[in-house]
Amino acid sequence: MSSDKQIWKPGTMLNPVPVVMVSCGTFGIKSNIITVAWTGTICTKPPMVSISVRKERFSYDLIRNTGKFVINLVSKELVRAADWCGCRSGRNFDKFAEMKLTAKKAETSDCPVISESPVNIECSVVNVLELGSHDLFIAKIDSVDVADYLIDTDTGALKLKRANLAVYCHGYYYEMGQELGKFGYSVKKTVKSISKSSKK
Amino acid sequence: MSSDKQIWKPGTMLNPVPVVMVSCGTFGIKSNIITVAWTGTICTKPPMVSISVRKERFSYDLIRNTGKFVINLVSKELVRAADWCGCRSGRNFDKFAEMKLTAKKAETSDCPVISESPVNIECSVVNVLELGSHDLFIAKIDSVDVADYLIDTDTGALKLKRANLAVYCHGYYYEMGQELGKFGYSVKKTVKSISKSSKK
Repeated sequence: MSSDKQIWKPGTMLNPVPVVMVSCGTFGIKSNIITVAWTGTICTKPPMVSISVRKERFSYDLIRNTGKFVINLVSKELVRAADWCGCRSGRNFDKFAEMKLTAKKAETSDCPVISESPVNIECSVVNVLELGSHDLFIAKIDSVDVADYLIDTDTGALKLKRANLAVYCHGYYYEMGQELGKFGYSVKKTVKSISKSSKK
Repeated sequence: MSSDKQIWKPGTMLNPVPVVMVSCGTFGIKSNIITVAWTGTICTKPPMVSISVRKERFSYDLIRNTGKFVINLVSKELVRAADWCGCRSGRNFDKFAEMKLTAKKAETSDCPVISESPVNIECSVVNVLELGSHDLFIAKIDSVDVADYLIDTDTGALKLKRANLAVYCHGYYYEMGQELGKFGYSVKKTVKSISKSSKK
């Protein structure tokens, strides 16, 4: 369906987007969590991500000073904590304590990770770009910590569906819904279509 | 639930992510579509986005040469086209024609937009960073074109839920699922809790 459009002024309209809890600081000394929706994968080889953070945020200096952060994926069960951490400042609260989350030292740095998150993506900052309201932290991924229960015990394959990840869209958090297809499904020949074409 | 983790080597594990069709080229001369999951909002003021594209992709030169692209959000109905456009090259196919999509000239440039997409985000490249497999295109948003049916006729408010946007997670496309809360819900005082606290 092609439809008529209204032309709006520029705005941040890319949706849906990830919603993640970024942990930062130094484990055992000062740990904080900032919830971030302005994040994305930016390179496959080497694996790299970006997060955008406002200079005035408490986490900004923690990340700048250590050069490290961890992206903690947010399951359905962690959405309330993610929302709270996005509304409160680490200047006033110990967010791990308030949200009853367990900090653990990252594998590759002194950064804290959130144990309750199903996947922790440990990152090192390689560049920071000033864009305006936000600075863009460009980072390489050092390690990925995956919860045991996401791994198929027979095959070793990752079953990320078991993580019940949440997604963010235009001011609301959502569960993932029905599966619509696997990458490449539109060009994949089915057994039926192969057998049909072989008869031609 | 805190759980035991396996430590994996670095990989692109940020999930879920947006899946969008990026249209590029010059309307009426050479239009192409590339499906991109490595994209994100990177700044609020000014509104900016990034997309990551491999140098060898047909769209790479189109975007570099014109400095323009359009992010077309993908509804459930457009997932098959998005998947196909992510598996085929514009060197071999007219993707608009193959997918029966309607190209229209963007408002702010000569770039094509996909009419069938519920939201078109028109962008101008301001910087390109070489990262490895992918180059990061950093862009400002020039205009946002919103389908009429997404706008509440009484209030003028955007009802993005009507777009049935799809999301991508670890190799699969999904619908958006059940709503889990509105941004800020974890810190919002309910009428009940306000009346309770006023009694104290």
